[in-house]
Amino acid sequence: MAFKVVELVLGLLLAVPVCGLWPIPRALQTGTTPLILSKDFKITAIRNPPSDLTGAISRTLGHISDDKLQRLVVGRASADEAAVQHAKQLPSLTLSLAEGAEVKSISEEAIKPLGTRSEEYVLHVPSDGSPATLSANSTLGLLRGLTTFEQLWYDLDGAATYTLEAPISITDAPAYPYRGFMLDTARNFFSVSDIERTLDAMSWAKMNQFHWHVVDSQSFPLQISGFTEVAAKGAYSSSMTFSPSDVQTIVTYAAERGIDVLAEIDTPGHTAIIYESHPEHVACFVSSPWTTFANEPPSGQLRFASPATTNFTTGLIAAAAKMFPSSMFSTGGDELNIPCYDADAETQQILNSTGQTLEQALSTFTQSTHGALATLGKTPVVWEEMVLEHNVTLANDTVVMVWISSANAAAVAEKNFRIVHGPSDYFYLDCGAGEWLGGDPLANSWCDPFKTWQKSYTFDPLANITESQQHLVMGGQQLLWTEQSGPENLDAIAWPRAASSAEVFWTGATLPDGTPRNVSSALPRLHDFRFRMVQRGIRAIPLQPLWCALRPGLCDLDS
Amino acid sequence: MAFKVVELVLGLLLAVPVCGLWPIPRALQTGTTPLILSKDFKITAIRNPPSDLTGAISRTLGHISDDKLQRLVVGRASADEAAVQHAKQLPSLTLSLAEGAEVKSISEEAIKPLGTRSEEYVLHVPSDGSPATLSANSTLGLLRGLTTFEQLWYDLDGAATYTLEAPISITDAPAYPYRGFMLDTARNFFSVSDIERTLDAMSWAKMNQFHWHVVDSQSFPLQISGFTEVAAKGAYSSSMTFSPSDVQTIVTYAAERGIDVLAEIDTPGHTAIIYESHPEHVACFVSSPWTTFANEPPSGQLRFASPATTNFTTGLIAAAAKMFPSSMFSTGGDELNIPCYDADAETQQILNSTGQTLEQALSTFTQSTHGALATLGKTPVVWEEMVLEHNVTLANDTVVMVWISSANAAAVAEKNFRIVHGPSDYFYLDCGAGEWLGGDPLANSWCDPFKTWQKSYTFDPLANITESQQHLVMGGQQLLWTEQSGPENLDAIAWPRAASSAEVFWTGATLPDGTPRNVSSALPRLHDFRFRMVQRGIRAIPLQPLWCALRPGLCDLDS
Repeated sequence: MAFKVVELVLGLLLAVPVCGLWPIPRALQTGTTPLILSKDFKITAIRNPPSDLTGAISRTLGHISDDKLQRLVVGRASADEAAVQHAKQLPSLTLSLAEGAEVKSISEEAIKPLGTRSEEYVLHVPSDGSPATLSANSTLGLLRGLTTFEQLWYDLDGAATYTLEAPISITDAPAYPYRGFMLDTARNFFSVSDIERTLDAMSWAKMNQFHWHVVDSQSFPLQISGFTEVAAKGAYSSSMTFSPSDVQTIVTYAAERGIDVLAEIDTPGHTAIIYESHPEHVACFVSSPWTTFANEPPSGQLRFASPATTNFTTGLIAAAAKMFPSSMFSTGGDELNIPCYDADAETQQILNSTGQTLEQALSTFTQSTHGALATLGKTPVVWEEMVLEHNVTLANDTVVMVWISSANAAAVAEKNFRIVHGPSDYFYLDCGAGEWLGGDPLANSWCDPFKTWQKSYTFDPLANITESQQHLVMGGQQLLWTEQSGPENLDAIAWPRAASSAEVFWTGATLPDGTPRNVSSALPRLHDFRFRMVQRGIRAIPLQPLWCALRPGLCDLDS
Repeated sequence: MAFKVVELVLGLLLAVPVCGLWPIPRALQTGTTPLILSKDFKITAIRNPPSDLTGAISRTLGHISDDKLQRLVVGRASADEAAVQHAKQLPSLTLSLAEGAEVKSISEEAIKPLGTRSEEYVLHVPSDGSPATLSANSTLGLLRGLTTFEQLWYDLDGAATYTLEAPISITDAPAYPYRGFMLDTARNFFSVSDIERTLDAMSWAKMNQFHWHVVDSQSFPLQISGFTEVAAKGAYSSSMTFSPSDVQTIVTYAAERGIDVLAEIDTPGHTAIIYESHPEHVACFVSSPWTTFANEPPSGQLRFASPATTNFTTGLIAAAAKMFPSSMFSTGGDELNIPCYDADAETQQILNSTGQTLEQALSTFTQSTHGALATLGKTPVVWEEMVLEHNVTLANDTVVMVWISSANAAAVAEKNFRIVHGPSDYFYLDCGAGEWLGGDPLANSWCDPFKTWQKSYTFDPLANITESQQHLVMGGQQLLWTEQSGPENLDAIAWPRAASSAEVFWTGATLPDGTPRNVSSALPRLHDFRFRMVQRGIRAIPLQPLWCALRPGLCDLDS
């Protein structure tokens, strides 16, 4: 018979340390020597540190002191007591910037154009009690290194903070420059603190782009200077808005954590609620049946063939873009409904009088909004339909987000545009909850089933991309559309799943030991990351019974 | 074209009040007269009220004062200001018991045997400013009426607490006696406060059975007098346990809210962790591959053919059953793995020496544990396999829980056993999150997809049940197995979905207006119930964008 003696099995597994690193660094060497943090462990900053680097160091010291995460092994802390008893002490971590590197704040580094940010770092934790060192080419790189350093330590039930894996040597840099998370704050509203909590969680996984889908057809919570009537009439309530000061709070909070905020005003579709303040700019608002006029209720789209609507939208987007320091801004462009315009007398009258086609008018409209962004020095971002389904003239540097299907990335690459992967078949966090429309007992959703962390983790950013097109792949993100989500389940639906793609796009295809990235070796580390998130106040869900989390491999399909 | 003028559409819909009742009463008449609660509104109890009735009245007054739920219409409270301005005031609600009814506490009434509890009540809220009345045959019925009364009121932005639907007349009683919720506290641990919060939510939907799947193969958190070693070695940690005092707290809290606690010690399968304290009683603990020896890891089952193991288990179950005042106790009985016993030398030796078959031994074992329950005056509850897959002799009054498929209820009814519906294809709250096993990139789960509230709501308790068998159908419940759940997502994964079956089993097949129960008319009420839950601190998730919740019908599939 195939019985194993359980104690032997467990004993063997206990000898394999669970590593707390997520995403796992590109190059990593660990030893087997226990090491504890000195009671007066300190982190030495660079000379004249920018205040956000000082803040990052404080947060790291806070996490090291407060995480109180016991190692995920049977017996938890007690399993390591003997090993740690005579361990040497690590007195300090010393930060340094590469010689000649200009000292800028993390916040300045974080919002540089995509592909120009320096996130690489080198971290050494000796086992002999000499100080650890962290060096980088920028304060942003130092932040990434601090984030790694925080993940090395476990709690010996209050008696010590330790690792069993010294010496540790890490040389790290992201495989892709865009590692994001998208939140929709329009279908249902989220507060500034919900967003800040999300930014915290993102930063722990070294994610660097918060894609804020701030408004949509259902509500317009963004208060935009010069256009305050739009939120005044389009927000769910006066308290369910983001004031300019709220936006400033969020972009500052994000940048200090190495995160650039890519805001989106989705146009010309997904704009129904603008009707409440500007009925003249919105065609087919709440037309019936909505299934003819929109992909979801309520129908209503900007009457983009109208010069007045183009002027209005261009002004709105320019004013919104000025609120965000990012070098990118998204004008959306998904799910444009054509029957709406076919049925709109005013649109038809304009097209007839100008002799334009609808597609020509769309291109004119888009060039107007994108021209305003160019004037502000910003790069436009659009959804894939703008290049795959419409004949819109776009600047070469436009970033295109793939969402309908992972299969569409290749077509975008063929058109020589930069790509951000956000395919619904891998990365939609909201899928799998069934249909939310009323009056449908079957309640099947187009994007079922649920996208597991395993599914997201197996995503290949270069699938069907030729070698000469690989430079176009900027990275990707997991996305939360919030028809069926609110502050109540934000953490639970997003975490730890949304960290899955963070490793896909930071670590790339190959683990530091040279083997391909795979769900088996990822699981114990994702457990560790999730438990650490919970310790830090994120309501991330368990991936398995605790019995399994403490016994790597024993709950594998083939074990 | 099919355009509608939106203002007209919205205006029409606004005239239809959103009713806050969930589950909707069996008989209900409402008017259209606004009525506000007097500033010194009071509830008059019966003479010499039991303390838990006084407590229930206090909670009702608290909810009425604290809910602050504005009606789900465009404009919220401001939409009703004019209507309420000159409304009459309701001074009080007077409770009474039917003449001759014996006054017992809610807690005593709540734990009476299934089918003997009196939950019916009659509630009148006049529109002319005269007192409202609530009468019932028991304090439990009064509790149900108070729960209904709480759902009638909205907040006028602090200026008043009102209804637009006076007079209101309700005659109500549950269609089925068992309306439950099952929580697994073994795969992952939940605290007493998590359970209390769940009991609160249950009580608001008039659910009356908390099925506590307290232990399983992964952990044994229940401290049982005389068997404390089992939790001492089988709980995840000393803090992740339920002490006798914790159990007392929970059963008291539940009973005060009209909820009976049906505890389960699942046997003889789902018991692996007992190996840690009693290796002599557990066969094939962590045998490899686990897929041969269990439906999920870790493998390990009670060696039930052994008289010593039967004695041990009988003692364990008797001691556990004594901790719970319910007249029912579940011995489980699902997913028994036969290859485990085929491979267990000790089991084979016993069977050979006694000449028993495994099935005969199982029957002996079950008769022993059920005999102990009978001695305690308790009715046994088992999973469906005990009657459909095994040849076990069971008492006639045994309650059988259907879980594998809704199609199996008819077969249980044919064997003339009482049925509780908990079919995985309708009622498993955990389904739809993909597989949690490691090493499986595809991560497809046997119980995908997600069971939407709509799916649960369309369940027919009497499908394929003959008229003469209908008396066997006790009701049903939604179930949360917690391989991928913890305190982090308990509210979000359970609510408001778990309230779906509460209406199925309280209201039955027909709405008070005589039409069949249907998802279209349920949705606005379920929204209202969910918003009220959030106001009371349950993190229940949104079912739709707020835009839709405020505009019943406009987000229906065919609108």
